[in-house]
Amino acid sequence: MAAPEKKVVQPNKQQLLNRLKRIEGQVRGIHKMVDEDRYCVDVLNQVSAVNSALHKVSMALLADHTHHCVARAVQNDNGEEAIDEVLDVMERLLK
Amino acid sequence: MAAPEKKVVQPNKQQLLNRLKRIEGQVRGIHKMVDEDRYCVDVLNQVSAVNSALHKVSMALLADHTHHCVARAVQNDNGEEAIDEVLDVMERLLK
Amino acid sequence: MAAPEKKVVQPNKQQLLNRLKRIEGQVRGIHKMVDEDRYCVDVLNQVSAVNSALHKVSMALLADHTHHCVARAVQNDNGEEAIDEVLDVMERLLK
Amino acid sequence: MAAPEKKVVQPNKQQLLNRLKRIEGQVRGIHKMVDEDRYCVDVLNQVSAVNSALHKVSMALLADHTHHCVARAVQNDNGEEAIDEVLDVMERLLK
Repeated sequence: MAAPEKKVVQPNKQQLLNRLKRIEGQVRGIHKMVDEDRYCVDVLNQVSAVNSALHKVSMALLADHTHHCVARAVQNDNGEEAIDEVLDVMERLLK
Repeated sequence: MAAPEKKVVQPNKQQLLNRLKRIEGQVRGIHKMVDEDRYCVDVLNQVSAVNSALHKVSMALLADHTHHCVARAVQNDNGEEAIDEVLDVMERLLK
Repeated sequence: MAAPEKKVVQPNKQQLLNRLKRIEGQVRGIHKMVDEDRYCVDVLNQVSAVNSALHKVSMALLADHTHHCVARAVQNDNGEEAIDEVLDVMERLLK
Repeated sequence: MAAPEKKVVQPNKQQLLNRLKRIEGQVRGIHKMVDEDRYCVDVLNQVSAVNSALHKVSMALLADHTHHCVARAVQNDNGEEAIDEVLDVMERLLK
């Protein structure tokens, strides 16, 4: 039997949901710009704006995860796996 | 009177539109994961996937822009401004 | 009186020192390339190689620091500050 | 017979050489910090400083290369290859 799926209520859940909703709107906006043949540089600048917004979401999630899930795992003496996991996430975000 | 807005039909327009539609769906998916209290690392891995997808969109736009708009400006002897503009975009993407 | 300076013997100290010595040599090599008017793209490719080598040093340091210093701080119930500190480092590396 | 090696005198050659000399010194400094068992976070912050300094060198080289070598290739009607080459460099720097 598979391990039960881990559930985590994000401490700043509503703020994260609002940010993600805004990012979804920004991506839809970029789709519209390309559809309307807008100048490439204007489109690229919007993509950079989405990159920055996503970066903030990543750092907020990373901070809450490390402060809560990873810290709790360390206190329960099974921190090794949790730390390796968060380092893998970091490595992927750095790509 | 403001200069007329530059219009550019992207050479791979439909492919770009499809990619952006997929990315929009991915962001909506991340919103759903947070809403359903999914494990932080699973959410973060999806954010990394969106980062990679956006990176591909940026590089595709940058390549077409440099090969067409910037090259044309250079051939019409007003390349300086177009090159400075694309370097600014590169700087922002490298951030 | 200032707090005593924190001392940490890196678990993979010699490996880190060897890597850093190689990177120093690579940077000296780039200096030589520019001095000898080597083609820009060849120089830029060497800079990318140094970026990758430095990235490996950063991830190695980050992993050891998180596994040892941060974990110890969490176990001694003063993890908050250590976690904030490592998140600041991650933020700077993600820039 | 192999094509003659491309030679390019960087327009800001001395400034580049000075920056690279400083970066070499910074890397030597990091080596010393690890050797003296300095606190990991202090070492990591120095690595971030070298990353930023290298980023400036990359952008300076990229700007001069695009303004001169790539522009000249475009004007001589063989811009395609030069543009592909600079986009490859960008892709590597973004890694």
